[in-house]
Amino acid sequence: MTTFDDFPWPAPGTALADVMTPMPIIDEARLAANIARAQRYISAQGKAFRPHIKTHKIPAIAKQQIAAGAVGINCQKLTEAEVFADAGFDDILITYNLLGAARLARLRRLNARVAQLRVVADSAVTVAGLADAFADADKPLAILVECETGAGRCGVQTPEQAVQLAKQIEQASGLRFDGLMTYPPAGGAQAVEAFFATTMAQLSALGIDCPVRSNGGSPDLFNAGAVPSATEHRSGTYVYNDRSMVRAGECTADDLAMHVLATVVSRPTTTRAVLDAGSKALTSDLLGFADHGEIVELPGARITSLSEEHAVVDLSACDGPLPEVGARVRVIPNHTCVVSNLFDRIVFHENDTVTRVETVAARGTVW
Amino acid sequence: MTTFDDFPWPAPGTALADVMTPMPIIDEARLAANIARAQRYISAQGKAFRPHIKTHKIPAIAKQQIAAGAVGINCQKLTEAEVFADAGFDDILITYNLLGAARLARLRRLNARVAQLRVVADSAVTVAGLADAFADADKPLAILVECETGAGRCGVQTPEQAVQLAKQIEQASGLRFDGLMTYPPAGGAQAVEAFFATTMAQLSALGIDCPVRSNGGSPDLFNAGAVPSATEHRSGTYVYNDRSMVRAGECTADDLAMHVLATVVSRPTTTRAVLDAGSKALTSDLLGFADHGEIVELPGARITSLSEEHAVVDLSACDGPLPEVGARVRVIPNHTCVVSNLFDRIVFHENDTVTRVETVAARGTVW
Repeated sequence: MTTFDDFPWPAPGTALADVMTPMPIIDEARLAANIARAQRYISAQGKAFRPHIKTHKIPAIAKQQIAAGAVGINCQKLTEAEVFADAGFDDILITYNLLGAARLARLRRLNARVAQLRVVADSAVTVAGLADAFADADKPLAILVECETGAGRCGVQTPEQAVQLAKQIEQASGLRFDGLMTYPPAGGAQAVEAFFATTMAQLSALGIDCPVRSNGGSPDLFNAGAVPSATEHRSGTYVYNDRSMVRAGECTADDLAMHVLATVVSRPTTTRAVLDAGSKALTSDLLGFADHGEIVELPGARITSLSEEHAVVDLSACDGPLPEVGARVRVIPNHTCVVSNLFDRIVFHENDTVTRVETVAARGTVW
Repeated sequence: MTTFDDFPWPAPGTALADVMTPMPIIDEARLAANIARAQRYISAQGKAFRPHIKTHKIPAIAKQQIAAGAVGINCQKLTEAEVFADAGFDDILITYNLLGAARLARLRRLNARVAQLRVVADSAVTVAGLADAFADADKPLAILVECETGAGRCGVQTPEQAVQLAKQIEQASGLRFDGLMTYPPAGGAQAVEAFFATTMAQLSALGIDCPVRSNGGSPDLFNAGAVPSATEHRSGTYVYNDRSMVRAGECTADDLAMHVLATVVSRPTTTRAVLDAGSKALTSDLLGFADHGEIVELPGARITSLSEEHAVVDLSACDGPLPEVGARVRVIPNHTCVVSNLFDRIVFHENDTVTRVETVAARGTVW
């Protein structure tokens, strides 16, 4: 029986040239520098830093983030949080509306074993479900109210709605209102500050404590200081960085810790190359780009389309020598977080020599 | 330690209403009907049918396809083929240029244990690598030459190039030229027939046998009869069908065997709902659509954007009652093959009652 353990995962010391493709590769030095740089900046603002693990889903990287000074981690799914609790993490925020009896029973068990667990809610229905599930719990569940500040996704729409939910939470015996949370769009600092400050004033007038104000996002990570009322910042993508982060001006190409190693498997015409990294390796996430990533070794080349296991590359505007069949290249993905999610394990290297292979432990945790 | 076995996978007999979301669900009756309908059509054309397992990656479904009359299976990756060889499949075509010493050593082991294994090649480099790897093999490797017929991906560009490669294959002691293969674009029947017929005539003049002419694609599945020279047809998506197949006219909404079960987790405004199925459940594959799937229960609703764990739904053009937080819906994905690839297991049902849970055994087989 073939198992994934039989696959040729490279031992430490292996040259990257001998790593099977397609494979995401993580540059250890850049990873460490990205972690240190973000932590240094957020600490200098007097805020707590809470990395979002959705980008890597690897406990060993989250441990590096904690070692650098992060207060805890941010998860998006209950089952992600379970995997990280198993790995010893004791301060976890799940930024998701958790619904349904089966999920809430699991949440109650998780709350009992994680020292500091928080979830978010943005509706009376979500709070009512949590209140029912925790009515007779020994340890109350801490909740942040999610506020929308322009991203057009989840969140209460006004400070008045936030206060209303805070009151509903405070009235439930098994729940504790712990503050506010938002995931703003890029450039949303002013809207976040206005929402947080107005809501805090209204809560204060009612005598409701609001200790945590959690702001987030990688595109505005290095502008987190522009939200004075925020006590913490959450960020995921910064740890690897990607093409979208370079475009946003948040990093340079020298800060890209993830590339996808790929091989040229076909050269059907003089202007076309085909790589072995398709939508099942790079994903179809465009994030506003017109093509599917950049190729480090082929400036001017464009990945014009992906099928599931192939990337089609237009070489017609390529400078320099064109690749032969069998040539190996590094692709800068548009979006790293979704690439991690496709691979069971990921290869790390230092100066092109493999240092370790990490299991993407929370991949597949969909609930 | 939490493992995926601890997750609440539903037992047979469970109501779909109790299945955790997000989760792809497969309708058993529609699955069986899709398998039977395609097989009946291809058999009526006097051709062999070779389903592509990339869509489901589940041996139990491939066994249903074989039981219905398929001659064998089609894989895209060497490691997919290994998983299916372990499950007992003995006629496998890998439609991929396989390169590199590590991969070719594995291919040689696979060829020794699979009764009928074929791979494709479209360049002298690929054939040379295969020739080296199989030079002293007990059992020769059978190769089809991949021909491009308009899809703009891999394949030799002309019949003359195909003949050249066939000669190179015939001259290698460990290789056997077995015929031609193509993956045409929708509507490519005429180009395929012309390419195959011309190449066959040239090969025949040289005394080179060309027993297999393998054509493929789901969008043209029910037009496979328009390529008389093809001996077999390969198709993947037809087994589940999806929104793109309905648009192509290859099926109706009643033939959709896969939906993604999802829950409304937020209703921030009167016209916006948010589902718990984001790009890590539906993928970002658009396939030419302007939005990210259709919602069976919400005609007129549009999934306007996905983030990793959320789908944002615009309800402003919605007919009928709007969903509350906690409502469960079925999403018709744009593209099924990439959805399967995100889940470790998938739930099957008959009339909304769970029949089985299958492991997506070849998920993660990236090499």
